Amino acid sequence: MSLLVTGSIGIDTVETPFGKRDDVLGGSAVYFSYAASFFTSVRLVGVVGEDWPKPLLDVFDGRDVDASGLEVRQGSKTFRWHGSYLKDMNEAVTVEVDLNVLAERAPRIPDHFSDSRYVFLANTHPVLQQEMLCCLKQPKLIVADTMNLWIQTERNELVKLLQKIHGLVLNDGEARLLTGKKNLIQAARDVLRLGPQFVVIKKGEHGCLMCMEEDTFVLPAFPAERVVDPTGAGDSFAGGMMGYLATQGSFSPATIKRALAFGTVVASFTIADFTLGGLRATTRDQIDERWLEFKQAMSF
Amino acid sequence: MSLLVTGSIGIDTVETPFGKRDDVLGGSAVYFSYAASFFTSVRLVGVVGEDWPKPLLDVFDGRDVDASGLEVRQGSKTFRWHGSYLKDMNEAVTVEVDLNVLAERAPRIPDHFSDSRYVFLANTHPVLQQEMLCCLKQPKLIVADTMNLWIQTERNELVKLLQKIHGLVLNDGEARLLTGKKNLIQAARDVLRLGPQFVVIKKGEHGCLMCMEEDTFVLPAFPAERVVDPTGAGDSFAGGMMGYLATQGSFSPATIKRALAFGTVVASFTIADFTLGGLRATTRDQIDERWLEFKQAMSF
Repeated sequence: MSLLVTGSIGIDTVETPFGKRDDVLGGSAVYFSYAASFFTSVRLVGVVGEDWPKPLLDVFDGRDVDASGLEVRQGSKTFRWHGSYLKDMNEAVTVEVDLNVLAERAPRIPDHFSDSRYVFLANTHPVLQQEMLCCLKQPKLIVADTMNLWIQTERNELVKLLQKIHGLVLNDGEARLLTGKKNLIQAARDVLRLGPQFVVIKKGEHGCLMCMEEDTFVLPAFPAERVVDPTGAGDSFAGGMMGYLATQGSFSPATIKRALAFGTVVASFTIADFTLGGLRATTRDQIDERWLEFKQAMSF
Repeated sequence: MSLLVTGSIGIDTVETPFGKRDDVLGGSAVYFSYAASFFTSVRLVGVVGEDWPKPLLDVFDGRDVDASGLEVRQGSKTFRWHGSYLKDMNEAVTVEVDLNVLAERAPRIPDHFSDSRYVFLANTHPVLQQEMLCCLKQPKLIVADTMNLWIQTERNELVKLLQKIHGLVLNDGEARLLTGKKNLIQAARDVLRLGPQFVVIKKGEHGCLMCMEEDTFVLPAFPAERVVDPTGAGDSFAGGMMGYLATQGSFSPATIKRALAFGTVVASFTIADFTLGGLRATTRDQIDERWLEFKQAMSF
Protein backbone atom coordinates (compact mmCIF):
# COMPACT_ATOMS: atom_id res chain seq x y z
CA MET A 1 0.00 0.00 0.00
CA SER A 2 1.19 3.51 -0.78
CA LEU A 3 2.84 5.40 2.02
CA LEU A 4 2.75 9.18 1.98
CA VAL A 5 5.43 11.19 3.73
CA THR A 6 5.73 14.92 4.14
CA GLY A 7 8.79 16.42 5.72
CA SER A 8 11.98 18.31 5.07
CA ILE A 9 14.17 18.00 1.99
CA GLY A 10 17.43 19.84 2.25
CA ILE A 11 21.12 20.20 1.70
CA ASP A 12 23.34 19.13 4.57
CA THR A 13 26.92 19.70 5.58
CA VAL A 14 27.97 17.12 8.12
CA GLU A 15 31.10 16.66 10.21
CA THR A 16 31.88 13.51 12.19
CA PRO A 17 35.13 12.00 13.48
CA PHE A 18 35.21 10.11 10.16
CA GLY A 19 35.30 13.20 7.96
CA LYS A 20 33.21 15.97 6.47
CA ARG A 21 30.69 16.05 3.64
CA ASP A 22 29.64 19.35 2.09
CA ASP A 23 26.33 20.07 0.38
CA VAL A 24 24.95 16.55 0.42
CA LEU A 25 21.34 15.42 0.20
CA GLY A 26 19.50 15.43 3.52
CA GLY A 27 16.20 16.07 5.25
CA SER A 28 13.75 13.96 7.21
CA ALA A 29 11.52 13.08 4.25
CA VAL A 30 14.50 11.97 2.17
CA TYR A 31 15.86 9.52 4.73
CA PHE A 32 12.34 8.37 5.52
CA SER A 33 11.47 7.77 1.86
CA TYR A 34 14.60 5.81 1.06
CA ALA A 35 14.20 3.67 4.19
CA ALA A 36 10.50 3.02 3.56
CA SER A 37 11.08 2.16 -0.10
CA PHE A 38 12.70 -1.11 0.92
CA PHE A 39 9.21 -2.20 1.90
CA THR A 40 6.57 -0.36 -0.07
CA SER A 41 5.95 2.38 -2.63
CA VAL A 42 6.46 5.83 -1.23
CA ARG A 43 4.90 9.16 -2.10
CA LEU A 44 7.13 12.05 -1.22
CA VAL A 45 5.75 15.52 -0.56
CA GLY A 46 8.06 18.42 0.16
CA VAL A 47 9.27 21.79 -0.97
CA VAL A 48 12.67 23.10 -2.02
CA GLY A 49 13.87 26.43 -3.45
CA GLU A 50 14.75 27.46 -6.96
CA ASP A 51 18.41 26.82 -6.07
CA TRP A 52 17.69 23.10 -5.78
CA PRO A 53 20.35 21.02 -7.55
CA LYS A 54 18.05 18.67 -9.42
CA PRO A 55 20.52 15.76 -9.71
CA LEU A 56 20.46 15.35 -5.92
CA LEU A 57 17.19 13.42 -6.09
CA ASP A 58 18.70 10.98 -8.60
CA VAL A 59 19.32 8.96 -5.49
CA PHE A 60 15.73 7.71 -5.91
CA ASP A 61 16.28 6.48 -9.47
CA GLY A 62 15.19 2.89 -9.71
CA ARG A 63 13.48 3.04 -6.32
CA ASP A 64 9.77 2.92 -5.69
CA VAL A 65 9.55 6.58 -4.68
CA ASP A 66 7.10 8.91 -6.41
CA ALA A 67 8.62 12.38 -6.02
CA SER A 68 5.91 14.13 -7.99
CA GLY A 69 4.89 15.81 -4.75
CA LEU A 70 8.11 17.81 -4.76
CA GLU A 71 7.48 21.50 -5.22
CA VAL A 72 10.37 23.60 -6.53
CA ARG A 73 9.31 27.02 -5.35
CA GLN A 74 10.50 29.96 -7.40
CA GLY A 75 11.86 32.88 -5.42
CA SER A 76 12.66 30.67 -2.43
CA LYS A 77 15.79 28.96 -1.20
CA THR A 78 16.27 25.37 -0.11
CA PHE A 79 16.54 24.36 3.55
CA ARG A 80 20.15 23.97 4.67
CA TRP A 81 21.60 22.36 7.77
CA HIS A 82 25.20 22.17 8.94
CA GLY A 83 25.72 19.78 11.82
CA SER A 84 28.69 18.43 13.73
CA TYR A 85 29.11 15.20 15.68
CA LEU A 86 32.74 15.89 16.50
CA LYS A 87 32.00 16.29 20.21
CA ASP A 88 29.40 13.59 20.63
CA MET A 89 28.32 10.96 18.13
CA ASN A 90 24.99 10.74 19.91
CA GLU A 91 23.98 14.36 19.59
CA ALA A 92 24.44 16.72 16.68
CA VAL A 93 25.54 20.26 17.34
CA THR A 94 23.87 22.54 14.81
CA VAL A 95 26.64 24.75 13.43
CA GLU A 96 24.27 26.63 11.13
CA VAL A 97 20.71 26.26 9.96
CA ASP A 98 18.83 28.17 7.26
CA LEU A 99 15.14 27.23 7.29
CA ASN A 100 14.57 29.17 4.07
CA VAL A 101 11.57 27.63 2.27
CA LEU A 102 10.64 25.57 5.34
CA ALA A 103 9.69 28.81 7.08
CA GLU A 104 7.11 29.55 4.36
CA ARG A 105 3.77 27.86 3.61
CA ALA A 106 3.66 24.09 3.50
CA PRO A 107 3.74 22.17 0.23
CA ARG A 108 0.41 20.99 -1.18
CA ILE A 109 -0.46 17.34 -1.23
CA PRO A 110 -1.16 16.61 -4.93
CA ASP A 111 -4.66 15.35 -5.75
CA HIS A 112 -3.33 12.04 -6.99
CA PHE A 113 -1.86 11.42 -3.52
CA SER A 114 -5.10 12.12 -1.66
CA ASP A 115 -6.08 8.45 -1.58
CA SER A 116 -2.98 7.52 0.48
CA ARG A 117 -3.87 5.12 3.29
CA TYR A 118 -0.60 5.30 5.23
CA VAL A 119 0.75 8.68 6.22
CA PHE A 120 3.81 9.88 8.05
CA LEU A 121 3.93 13.54 9.03
CA ALA A 122 7.56 14.24 9.64
CA ASN A 123 8.40 17.06 11.98
CA THR A 124 7.03 20.48 11.06
CA HIS A 125 4.67 23.10 12.55
CA PRO A 126 1.66 21.24 14.04
CA VAL A 127 -0.77 23.58 12.24
CA LEU A 128 0.75 22.57 8.91
CA GLN A 129 0.62 18.92 9.95
CA GLN A 130 -3.12 19.27 10.64
CA GLU A 131 -3.71 21.09 7.37
CA MET A 132 -2.13 18.28 5.43
CA LEU A 133 -4.45 15.77 7.06
CA CYS A 134 -7.43 17.62 5.57
CA CYS A 135 -6.36 16.67 2.06
CA LEU A 136 -6.54 12.94 2.75
CA LYS A 137 -9.71 11.03 1.81
CA GLN A 138 -9.46 7.88 3.89
CA PRO A 139 -6.23 7.52 5.80
CA LYS A 140 -5.90 4.23 7.64
CA LEU A 141 -2.79 4.92 9.70
CA ILE A 142 -1.42 8.37 10.50
CA VAL A 143 1.78 8.75 12.44
CA ALA A 144 3.53 12.01 13.23
CA ASP A 145 6.88 13.18 14.51
CA THR A 146 7.45 16.46 16.33
CA MET A 147 10.23 18.42 18.03
CA ASN A 148 11.02 20.42 21.15
CA LEU A 149 10.40 23.76 19.38
CA TRP A 150 6.69 23.00 18.80
CA ILE A 151 6.26 21.47 22.23
CA GLN A 152 7.48 24.73 23.73
CA THR A 153 5.82 27.23 21.41
CA GLU A 154 2.74 25.49 19.92
CA ARG A 155 1.58 23.10 22.58
CA ASN A 156 -2.14 23.74 22.00
CA GLU A 157 -1.90 22.97 18.30
CA LEU A 158 0.24 19.94 18.98
CA VAL A 159 -2.35 18.63 21.44
CA LYS A 160 -5.02 19.13 18.76
CA LEU A 161 -2.89 17.18 16.29
CA LEU A 162 -2.49 14.33 18.78
CA GLN A 163 -6.26 13.83 18.75
CA LYS A 164 -6.17 13.28 14.99
CA ILE A 165 -3.36 10.74 14.64
CA HIS A 166 -2.90 7.08 15.47
CA GLY A 167 0.74 7.13 16.49
CA LEU A 168 3.37 9.59 17.65
CA VAL A 169 7.12 9.15 17.28
CA LEU A 170 9.39 11.37 19.33
CA ASN A 171 12.68 11.20 21.16
CA ASP A 172 13.24 10.85 24.89
CA GLY A 173 13.98 14.52 25.52
CA GLU A 174 10.87 15.57 23.64
CA ALA A 175 8.70 13.06 25.51
CA ARG A 176 9.95 14.45 28.83
CA LEU A 177 9.37 18.02 27.65
CA LEU A 178 5.86 17.29 26.43
CA THR A 179 4.71 15.54 29.60
CA GLY A 180 6.93 16.84 32.36
CA LYS A 181 7.63 13.22 33.35
CA LYS A 182 11.23 12.10 33.70
CA ASN A 183 10.35 8.42 33.68
CA LEU A 184 9.83 7.48 30.04
CA ILE A 185 7.13 4.89 30.68
CA GLN A 186 5.13 7.46 32.61
CA ALA A 187 5.78 9.98 29.84
CA ALA A 188 4.56 7.53 27.21
CA ARG A 189 1.39 6.82 29.21
CA ASP A 190 0.73 10.56 29.45
CA VAL A 191 1.10 10.91 25.68
CA LEU A 192 -1.45 8.14 25.17
CA ARG A 193 -3.93 10.07 27.28
CA LEU A 194 -3.60 12.94 24.77
CA GLY A 195 -4.98 10.82 21.95
CA PRO A 196 -2.67 8.50 20.00
CA GLN A 197 -3.19 4.74 20.15
CA PHE A 198 0.53 4.16 20.34
CA VAL A 199 3.63 6.19 21.07
CA VAL A 200 7.21 5.37 20.15
CA ILE A 201 10.01 7.00 22.12
CA LYS A 202 13.38 6.94 20.34
CA LYS A 203 16.42 6.79 22.61
CA GLY A 204 19.18 6.96 19.99
CA GLU A 205 21.97 4.49 20.74
CA HIS A 206 19.82 3.10 23.56
CA GLY A 207 17.02 1.91 21.31
CA CYS A 208 13.36 2.69 21.69
CA LEU A 209 10.24 1.93 23.66
CA MET A 210 6.66 1.72 22.52
CA CYS A 211 3.51 1.99 24.59
CA MET A 212 -0.03 1.06 23.68
CA GLU A 213 -2.98 0.88 26.00
CA GLU A 214 -2.13 -2.53 27.40
CA ASP A 215 1.31 -3.18 26.04
CA THR A 216 4.82 -1.90 26.62
CA PHE A 217 7.62 -2.90 24.31
CA VAL A 218 11.31 -2.13 24.71
CA LEU A 219 13.99 -2.63 22.13
CA PRO A 220 17.71 -1.90 22.29
CA ALA A 221 19.48 -0.38 19.29
CA PHE A 222 21.19 -2.79 16.94
CA PRO A 223 24.67 -3.35 18.41
CA ALA A 224 26.66 -1.46 15.78
CA GLU A 225 30.43 -1.51 16.00
CA ARG A 226 30.99 1.23 13.43
CA VAL A 227 29.00 4.45 13.45
CA VAL A 228 30.20 6.90 10.77
CA ASP A 229 27.35 9.44 10.61
CA PRO A 230 24.19 9.29 12.74
CA THR A 231 22.33 11.84 10.57
CA GLY A 232 18.97 10.51 9.46
CA ALA A 233 18.97 7.57 11.90
CA GLY A 234 15.67 8.61 13.48
CA ASP A 235 14.02 9.28 10.11
CA SER A 236 15.29 5.97 8.72
CA PHE A 237 13.92 4.26 11.80
CA ALA A 238 10.51 5.81 11.18
CA GLY A 239 10.74 4.96 7.49
CA GLY A 240 11.54 1.32 8.11
CA MET A 241 8.77 1.10 10.70
CA MET A 242 6.10 2.76 8.54
CA GLY A 243 7.28 0.99 5.40
CA TYR A 244 6.76 -2.36 7.05
CA LEU A 245 3.42 -1.34 8.60
CA ALA A 246 2.15 -0.27 5.18
CA THR A 247 2.64 -3.83 3.95
CA GLN A 248 0.60 -5.27 6.81
CA GLY A 249 -3.14 -5.33 7.14
CA SER A 250 -3.34 -4.75 10.87
CA PHE A 251 -1.67 -2.68 13.53
CA SER A 252 -1.74 -5.21 16.31
CA PRO A 253 0.91 -4.89 19.01
CA ALA A 254 2.78 -7.81 17.42
CA THR A 255 2.83 -6.09 14.03
CA ILE A 256 4.04 -2.81 15.47
CA LYS A 257 6.78 -4.61 17.38
CA ARG A 258 8.06 -6.28 14.22
CA ALA A 259 7.88 -2.91 12.51
CA LEU A 260 9.97 -1.27 15.23
CA ALA A 261 12.59 -3.97 14.83
CA PHE A 262 12.68 -3.30 11.08
CA GLY A 263 13.05 0.41 11.78
CA THR A 264 15.92 -0.31 14.16
CA VAL A 265 17.69 -2.45 11.59
CA VAL A 266 17.24 0.02 8.72
CA ALA A 267 18.66 2.80 10.93
CA SER A 268 21.70 0.63 11.65
CA PHE A 269 22.50 0.64 7.93
CA THR A 270 22.04 4.41 7.70
CA ILE A 271 24.64 5.22 10.33
CA ALA A 272 27.33 3.06 8.73
CA ASP A 273 28.17 5.74 6.14
CA PHE A 274 27.69 9.43 5.34
CA THR A 275 24.40 10.82 4.04
CA LEU A 276 22.43 8.12 2.18
CA GLY A 277 25.52 6.05 1.42
CA GLY A 278 24.68 3.44 4.03
CA LEU A 279 21.14 2.91 2.76
CA ARG A 280 22.21 2.94 -0.89
CA ALA A 281 24.66 0.11 -0.24
CA THR A 282 21.90 -1.99 1.35
CA THR A 283 19.47 -4.53 -0.08
CA ARG A 284 16.16 -5.76 1.30
CA ASP A 285 17.77 -9.19 1.71
CA GLN A 286 20.44 -7.68 3.95
CA ILE A 287 17.74 -5.98 5.99
CA ASP A 288 15.85 -9.24 6.46
CA GLU A 289 19.07 -11.03 7.36
CA ARG A 290 20.03 -8.44 9.97
CA TRP A 291 16.48 -8.43 11.31
CA LEU A 292 16.85 -12.11 12.08
CA GLU A 293 20.30 -11.52 13.55
CA PHE A 294 18.83 -8.78 15.76
CA LYS A 295 15.99 -11.03 16.88
CA GLN A 296 18.60 -13.63 17.75
CA ALA A 297 20.86 -11.12 19.53
CA MET A 298 18.13 -10.37 22.04
CA SER A 299 16.30 -13.63 22.45
CA PHE A 300 16.76 -15.53 25.67
CA MET B 1 25.76 -24.84 43.98
CA SER B 2 27.24 -22.45 46.52
CA LEU B 3 28.00 -18.98 45.34
CA LEU B 4 30.67 -16.97 47.13
CA VAL B 5 30.58 -13.19 47.12
CA THR B 6 33.03 -10.74 48.56
CA GLY B 7 32.30 -7.04 48.54
CA SER B 8 31.30 -4.11 50.63
CA ILE B 9 28.92 -4.17 53.58
CA GLY B 10 28.02 -0.79 54.88
CA ILE B 11 25.62 1.72 56.29
CA ASP B 12 23.95 4.01 53.78
CA THR B 13 22.09 7.26 53.91
CA VAL B 14 20.12 7.77 50.74
CA GLU B 15 18.07 10.66 49.39
CA THR B 16 15.78 10.40 46.39
CA PRO B 17 12.76 12.41 45.25
CA PHE B 18 10.68 9.88 47.24
CA GLY B 19 12.30 10.62 50.59
CA LYS B 20 15.34 10.00 52.73
CA ARG B 21 16.54 6.97 54.65
CA ASP B 22 19.23 7.33 57.31
CA ASP B 23 21.65 4.62 58.44
CA VAL B 24 20.17 1.76 56.47
CA LEU B 25 21.83 -1.46 55.39
CA GLY B 26 23.79 -1.21 52.17
CA GLY B 27 26.89 -2.33 50.31
CA SER B 28 27.51 -4.28 47.13
CA ALA B 29 27.81 -7.69 48.80
CA VAL B 30 24.55 -7.18 50.69
CA TYR B 31 22.45 -6.40 47.63
CA PHE B 32 24.25 -9.10 45.68
CA SER B 33 23.65 -11.74 48.37
CA TYR B 34 19.98 -11.01 48.77
CA ALA B 35 19.44 -11.01 45.01
CA ALA B 36 21.39 -14.23 44.47
CA SER B 37 19.64 -16.00 47.34
CA PHE B 38 16.45 -16.19 45.27
CA PHE B 39 18.30 -18.75 43.18
CA THR B 40 20.99 -20.51 45.20
CA SER B 41 22.76 -20.62 48.55
CA VAL B 42 25.11 -17.72 49.07
CA ARG B 43 28.31 -17.38 51.07
CA LEU B 44 28.97 -13.85 52.12
CA VAL B 45 32.46 -12.57 52.90
CA GLY B 46 33.01 -9.04 54.09
CA VAL B 47 34.30 -6.88 56.88
CA VAL B 48 32.66 -4.29 59.11
CA GLY B 49 33.82 -2.29 62.11
CA GLU B 50 33.18 -2.75 65.80
CA ASP B 51 30.42 -0.14 65.49
CA TRP B 52 28.38 -2.55 63.36
CA PRO B 53 24.73 -2.63 64.45
CA LYS B 54 24.29 -6.41 64.50
CA PRO B 55 20.52 -6.42 63.88
CA LEU B 56 21.08 -4.94 60.44
CA LEU B 57 21.94 -8.34 59.01
CA ASP B 58 18.70 -9.82 60.33
CA VAL B 59 17.51 -9.05 56.84
CA PHE B 60 19.03 -12.40 55.89
CA ASP B 61 17.02 -14.37 58.49
CA GLY B 62 15.26 -17.19 56.76
CA ARG B 63 17.26 -16.72 53.57
CA ASP B 64 19.85 -19.10 52.24
CA VAL B 65 22.76 -16.77 53.03
CA ASP B 66 25.70 -18.00 55.12
CA ALA B 67 27.15 -14.86 56.69
CA SER B 68 29.84 -16.70 58.66
CA GLY B 69 32.39 -14.96 56.45
CA LEU B 70 31.53 -11.64 58.04
CA GLU B 71 34.45 -10.26 60.03
CA VAL B 72 33.63 -7.71 62.72
CA ARG B 73 36.97 -6.00 63.07
CA GLN B 74 37.78 -4.51 66.46
CA GLY B 75 39.26 -1.03 66.39
CA SER B 76 37.82 -0.31 62.98
CA LYS B 77 34.74 1.49 61.77
CA THR B 78 32.15 0.36 59.26
CA PHE B 79 32.03 1.68 55.70
CA ARG B 80 29.51 4.49 55.30
CA TRP B 81 28.06 6.07 52.19
CA HIS B 82 25.67 8.99 51.85
CA GLY B 83 24.28 9.40 48.35
CA SER B 84 21.70 11.60 46.71
CA TYR B 85 19.58 11.02 43.61
CA LEU B 86 17.73 14.30 43.97
CA LYS B 87 19.29 15.74 40.83
CA ASP B 88 19.31 12.65 38.66
CA MET B 89 17.73 9.27 39.38
CA ASN B 90 20.25 7.67 37.05
CA GLU B 91 23.38 8.82 38.81
CA ALA B 92 24.07 9.08 42.48
CA VAL B 93 25.89 12.10 43.81
CA THR B 94 28.09 11.02 46.71
CA VAL B 95 27.42 13.49 49.49
CA GLU B 96 29.85 11.81 51.86
CA VAL B 97 31.81 8.59 51.96
CA ASP B 98 33.87 7.08 54.76
CA LEU B 99 35.76 4.02 53.53
CA ASN B 100 36.84 3.21 57.09
CA VAL B 101 37.44 -0.56 57.32
CA LEU B 102 37.32 -0.93 53.52
CA ALA B 103 40.58 1.02 53.30
CA GLU B 104 42.30 -1.62 55.46
CA ARG B 105 43.28 -5.21 54.63
CA ALA B 106 40.72 -7.42 52.95
CA PRO B 107 38.62 -9.93 54.87
CA ARG B 108 39.82 -13.55 54.87
CA ILE B 109 37.85 -16.19 53.05
CA PRO B 110 37.07 -18.82 55.72
CA ASP B 111 38.45 -22.30 55.10
CA HIS B 112 34.98 -23.80 54.92
CA PHE B 113 34.26 -21.50 51.95
CA SER B 114 37.36 -22.50 49.97
CA ASP B 115 35.49 -25.15 47.99
CA SER B 116 33.14 -22.56 46.43
CA ARG B 117 32.71 -23.18 42.72
CA TYR B 118 30.98 -19.91 41.83
CA VAL B 119 32.59 -16.65 42.82
CA PHE B 120 31.71 -13.02 42.45
CA LEU B 121 34.37 -10.48 43.35
CA ALA B 122 32.49 -7.28 43.87
CA ASN B 123 34.38 -4.07 43.36
CA THR B 124 37.50 -3.58 45.48
CA HIS B 125 41.25 -3.08 44.93
CA PRO B 126 42.36 -5.51 42.17
CA VAL B 127 45.27 -6.75 44.28
CA LEU B 128 42.81 -7.79 46.98
CA GLN B 129 40.59 -9.39 44.35
CA GLN B 130 43.55 -11.48 43.15
CA GLU B 131 44.54 -12.41 46.71
CA MET B 132 41.07 -13.74 47.37
CA LEU B 133 41.25 -15.98 44.33
CA CYS B 134 44.28 -17.72 45.84
CA CYS B 135 42.16 -19.15 48.65
CA LEU B 136 39.84 -21.02 46.29
CA LYS B 137 40.51 -24.67 45.51
CA GLN B 138 38.59 -25.26 42.32
CA PRO B 139 36.52 -22.35 41.19
CA LYS B 140 34.40 -23.06 38.14
CA LEU B 141 33.18 -19.57 37.35
CA ILE B 142 34.78 -16.34 38.55
CA VAL B 143 33.24 -13.01 37.70
CA ALA B 144 34.48 -9.64 38.92
CA ASP B 145 33.26 -6.08 39.06
CA THR B 146 35.53 -3.04 39.15
CA MET B 147 35.34 0.76 39.18
CA ASN B 148 36.86 3.86 37.59
CA LEU B 149 39.22 4.45 40.53
CA TRP B 150 41.11 1.18 39.90
CA ILE B 151 41.09 1.64 36.16
CA GLN B 152 42.82 4.96 36.65
CA THR B 153 45.20 4.08 39.46
CA GLU B 154 45.80 0.32 39.29
CA ARG B 155 45.49 -0.56 35.63
CA ASN B 156 48.38 -3.07 35.67
CA GLU B 157 46.91 -5.04 38.56
CA LEU B 158 43.47 -4.90 36.99
CA VAL B 159 44.86 -6.29 33.74
CA LYS B 160 46.48 -9.12 35.73
CA LEU B 161 43.13 -9.84 37.37
CA LEU B 162 41.41 -9.97 33.99
CA GLN B 163 43.63 -12.87 32.99
CA LYS B 164 42.40 -14.85 35.98
CA ILE B 165 38.64 -14.46 35.68
CA HIS B 166 35.95 -15.75 33.35
CA GLY B 167 33.71 -12.73 33.27
CA LEU B 168 33.85 -9.02 33.97
CA VAL B 169 30.87 -6.82 34.85
CA LEU B 170 31.29 -3.07 34.60
CA ASN B 171 29.30 -0.02 33.62
CA ASP B 172 29.46 1.91 30.36
CA GLY B 173 31.63 4.72 31.69
CA GLU B 174 34.11 2.24 33.15
CA ALA B 175 34.26 0.24 29.92
CA ARG B 176 35.06 3.41 27.98
CA LEU B 177 37.68 4.43 30.53
CA LEU B 178 39.34 1.01 30.51
CA THR B 179 39.59 0.72 26.73
CA GLY B 180 39.56 4.28 25.41
CA LYS B 181 36.77 3.24 23.04
CA LYS B 182 33.56 5.29 22.96
CA ASN B 183 31.61 2.64 21.07
CA LEU B 184 30.56 0.07 23.66
CA ILE B 185 30.75 -2.93 21.32
CA GLN B 186 34.31 -2.01 20.45
CA ALA B 187 35.03 -1.45 24.14
CA ALA B 188 33.62 -4.88 25.01
CA ARG B 189 35.72 -6.54 22.31
CA ASP B 190 38.83 -4.85 23.71
CA VAL B 191 38.02 -6.13 27.20
CA LEU B 192 37.73 -9.66 25.82
CA ARG B 193 41.24 -9.35 24.40
CA LEU B 194 42.48 -8.72 27.96
CA GLY B 195 41.37 -12.15 29.12
CA PRO B 196 37.76 -12.73 30.17
CA GLN B 197 35.53 -15.04 28.17
CA PHE B 198 32.61 -12.71 28.53
CA VAL B 199 32.03 -9.11 29.49
CA VAL B 200 28.81 -7.50 30.63
CA ILE B 201 28.43 -3.74 30.29
CA LYS B 202 25.71 -2.26 32.48
CA LYS B 203 23.99 0.84 31.11
CA GLY B 204 21.64 1.64 34.01
CA GLU B 205 18.17 2.57 32.81
CA HIS B 206 19.27 1.64 29.28
CA GLY B 207 19.90 -2.04 30.05
CA CYS B 208 23.05 -3.98 29.34
CA LEU B 209 25.07 -5.63 26.65
CA MET B 210 27.15 -8.77 26.77
CA CYS B 211 29.95 -9.84 24.46
CA MET B 212 31.55 -13.25 24.08
CA GLU B 213 33.96 -14.30 21.38
CA GLU B 214 31.30 -14.92 18.76
CA ASP B 215 28.20 -13.51 20.34
CA THR B 216 26.78 -10.11 21.16
CA PHE B 217 23.67 -9.78 23.27
CA VAL B 218 21.75 -6.62 24.06
CA LEU B 219 19.02 -6.22 26.61
CA PRO B 220 16.99 -3.16 27.60
CA ALA B 221 16.20 -2.54 31.24
CA PHE B 222 12.85 -3.76 32.49
CA PRO B 223 10.39 -0.96 31.69
CA ALA B 224 9.77 0.22 35.25
CA GLU B 225 7.18 2.90 35.82
CA ARG B 226 8.13 3.60 39.41
CA VAL B 227 11.75 4.00 40.49
CA VAL B 228 12.04 4.91 44.16
CA ASP B 229 15.73 4.27 44.92
CA PRO B 230 18.26 2.99 42.36
CA THR B 231 20.84 2.10 45.04
CA GLY B 232 22.02 -1.48 44.65
CA ALA B 233 20.50 -1.97 41.19
CA GLY B 234 23.82 -2.96 39.63
CA ASP B 235 24.69 -5.30 42.50
CA SER B 236 21.25 -6.88 42.41
CA PHE B 237 21.65 -7.34 38.68
CA ALA B 238 24.94 -9.14 39.23
CA GLY B 239 23.41 -11.17 42.06
CA GLY B 240 20.49 -12.32 39.98
CA MET B 241 22.77 -13.16 37.09
CA MET B 242 25.30 -15.11 39.16
CA GLY B 243 22.60 -16.73 41.27
CA TYR B 244 20.97 -18.15 38.19
CA LEU B 245 24.31 -19.19 36.64
CA ALA B 246 25.21 -21.08 39.80
CA THR B 247 22.15 -23.27 39.30
CA GLN B 248 23.17 -24.15 35.74
CA GLY B 249 25.79 -26.62 34.65
CA SER B 250 27.08 -24.69 31.65
CA PHE B 251 27.94 -21.15 30.71
CA SER B 252 26.81 -21.28 27.13
CA PRO B 253 25.79 -18.00 25.51
CA ALA B 254 22.14 -19.04 25.89
CA THR B 255 22.59 -19.66 29.63
CA ILE B 256 24.34 -16.35 30.18
CA LYS B 257 21.60 -14.53 28.25
CA ARG B 258 18.89 -16.05 30.44
CA ALA B 259 21.00 -15.13 33.47
CA LEU B 260 21.26 -11.51 32.33
CA ALA B 261 17.50 -11.36 31.95
CA PHE B 262 17.10 -12.68 35.51
CA GLY B 263 19.59 -10.06 36.71
CA THR B 264 17.61 -7.36 34.94
CA VAL B 265 14.37 -8.49 36.51
CA VAL B 266 15.77 -8.78 40.03
CA ALA B 267 17.20 -5.26 39.74
CA SER B 268 13.76 -4.00 38.73
CA PHE B 269 12.42 -5.16 42.09
CA THR B 270 15.30 -3.53 43.97
CA ILE B 271 14.63 -0.05 42.63
CA ALA B 272 10.95 -0.12 43.55
CA ASP B 273 11.68 0.72 47.19
CA PHE B 274 14.39 2.06 49.50
CA THR B 275 17.34 -0.07 50.60
CA LEU B 276 16.43 -3.79 50.54
CA GLY B 277 12.71 -3.12 50.83
CA GLY B 278 12.03 -3.93 47.21
CA LEU B 279 13.83 -7.27 47.32
CA ARG B 280 12.33 -8.21 50.67
CA ALA B 281 8.82 -7.76 49.29
CA THR B 282 9.59 -10.10 46.41
CA THR B 283 9.22 -13.84 45.93
CA ARG B 284 10.92 -16.17 43.48
CA ASP B 285 7.54 -16.73 41.86
CA GLN B 286 7.21 -13.02 41.19
CA ILE B 287 10.68 -12.99 39.67
CA ASP B 288 9.84 -15.88 37.35
CA GLU B 289 6.58 -14.20 36.40
CA ARG B 290 8.25 -10.90 35.59
CA TRP B 291 11.00 -12.74 33.70
CA LEU B 292 8.36 -14.14 31.38
CA GLU B 293 6.69 -10.74 31.12
CA PHE B 294 10.06 -9.23 30.21
CA LYS B 295 10.70 -11.90 27.59
CA GLN B 296 7.28 -11.09 26.18
CA ALA B 297 7.85 -7.33 26.27
CA MET B 298 10.79 -7.63 23.93
CA SER B 299 9.87 -10.48 21.65
CA PHE B 300 8.88 -9.71 18.11
